[in-house]
Amino acid sequence: MNTLIFTLYSSSTFSQNIVKQVPCKPGSIEIRSFPDDESYIKINSDVKNQRVIFIATLDRPNDKLVPLIFAAETARALGASEIGLIAPYLAYMRQDKQFEEGEGITSKFCGKMLSNYFNWILTIDPHLHRYHSLNEIYSIPSHVLHATIQISNWIMSNIPDCLIIGPDQESAQWVTEIAKMVQAPFVILEKRRKGDKEVEISMPSIDKYKNLTPVVLDDIVSTAKTMIETVKLLKNLKMKSPICIAVHAVFAEDAYSELMNSGVAKIATCNTIEHPSNMIDVGEAVARYFSATMNN
Amino acid sequence: MNTLIFTLYSSSTFSQNIVKQVPCKPGSIEIRSFPDDESYIKINSDVKNQRVIFIATLDRPNDKLVPLIFAAETARALGASEIGLIAPYLAYMRQDKQFEEGEGITSKFCGKMLSNYFNWILTIDPHLHRYHSLNEIYSIPSHVLHATIQISNWIMSNIPDCLIIGPDQESAQWVTEIAKMVQAPFVILEKRRKGDKEVEISMPSIDKYKNLTPVVLDDIVSTAKTMIETVKLLKNLKMKSPICIAVHAVFAEDAYSELMNSGVAKIATCNTIEHPSNMIDVGEAVARYFSATMNN
Repeated sequence: MNTLIFTLYSSSTFSQNIVKQVPCKPGSIEIRSFPDDESYIKINSDVKNQRVIFIATLDRPNDKLVPLIFAAETARALGASEIGLIAPYLAYMRQDKQFEEGEGITSKFCGKMLSNYFNWILTIDPHLHRYHSLNEIYSIPSHVLHATIQISNWIMSNIPDCLIIGPDQESAQWVTEIAKMVQAPFVILEKRRKGDKEVEISMPSIDKYKNLTPVVLDDIVSTAKTMIETVKLLKNLKMKSPICIAVHAVFAEDAYSELMNSGVAKIATCNTIEHPSNMIDVGEAVARYFSATMNN
Repeated sequence: MNTLIFTLYSSSTFSQNIVKQVPCKPGSIEIRSFPDDESYIKINSDVKNQRVIFIATLDRPNDKLVPLIFAAETARALGASEIGLIAPYLAYMRQDKQFEEGEGITSKFCGKMLSNYFNWILTIDPHLHRYHSLNEIYSIPSHVLHATIQISNWIMSNIPDCLIIGPDQESAQWVTEIAKMVQAPFVILEKRRKGDKEVEISMPSIDKYKNLTPVVLDDIVSTAKTMIETVKLLKNLKMKSPICIAVHAVFAEDAYSELMNSGVAKIATCNTIEHPSNMIDVGEAVARYFSATMNN
């Protein structure tokens, strides 16, 4: 049995290492839109009795989920024996409870939906806040990888004397881990969300770190309000211009240019979502994971 | 037990007659996009142990299907006892066989997907070409209504002496039925599709109908190429400027302005998809159907 990897929605830098290093063949699939905006799917590779893996990152998910699911159905109809999903960025992880009566817990619905079509899912640093594990919302086996090592290595290679800053308690554990690897001091800020787009941040005293380069770390940059507020605070405290690092470069609407213009020295993101700020390859981590598990 | 009707994606003229005439209450739902383009769903009405109906037309479906499914899941999670879907225009009906090896039969996938979330589906003139019934692809009860009477009435009220023209064999039965109701002569043309956007049409001799107003009828106008080719043919034959009637006003890309500029006298469509050309209400047909079945 062979493994075929189909790259649907992914940065080419992310998938190239996986396709190169994992014992598999790249699969050929055609997904295009008819003039009426329905999707046409055609799998050109022979998938009968084969293992199939789709790579599809799921930022801006509504438009991607239907073609992705129909692609999985097509592979299934053509006789694929197993269909896995690598979603470098996993969608719908943030609505993880009913904040108000009547709300849909969309993280559950998305988990149930994808579990209907795939045999397993692999993702990188999903936004696990109230959930402890993807198993709470996915009924299929789930594999979670972390960008911790790749981010730590990038910091060590590029920023000699740094202060690691976590913008909120949600990221505390993850930020602490990176700070330890980098052997740098760290602070965790307090964030209060005031709506979809507004945040308020308070900073402990960091006077003693004035000679270090601040490195602001977050898992997702979406509206970038958290990052921008943090950068403003650092500026007011007369710290050096910070470097902002995130795993997932969602950058909604004008978020990227707003963050660029806020006074940052640099923005570096992992390549889970293709973006001009991608500087840290995490496809290699997936490649390594697969090489290891497929050899066992 | 009450029935609550939620209007998600629908022309207000279509749903207003249903909400007015059917013994039910309009439900209140909030669907909006977060800055990262994920959907937020909140049902404000109490749906516990109630019958719920969603009205959602499914042209340009990929972007609508995920919020619609999540809305159904939300109603289910809040305790709705039954969830029905009125899809005035039903998506993914056209890929109804493998034209080439490797293609996904998306009509089946869409049918299976919606059947997972709804207890029944009602639609108007679905594009049943190779399928005889929605039961072949939907595992839930399906109800199919036709716009035949509404279109016939509109023609009788608005076009005194007409020749009904069906642009292809697919529409023959439906066009014949309308011609009989209107008591007008009719011709069925031969169409050959040459790709997603190109069609070739041939016309039998219609010299004897030169004093009649040609009425070109089709179920869906998407690229409008079929309509435009037919209008051109009629012009070459020195017929009067035709009136074009369709059930579903998909009008992909520039199709509407292209058809407007092709030499038509008028374009009239049913209100299954909201569009400036809507002139024929079919919501009333749905209202009547429900009044009848709910009273039984």
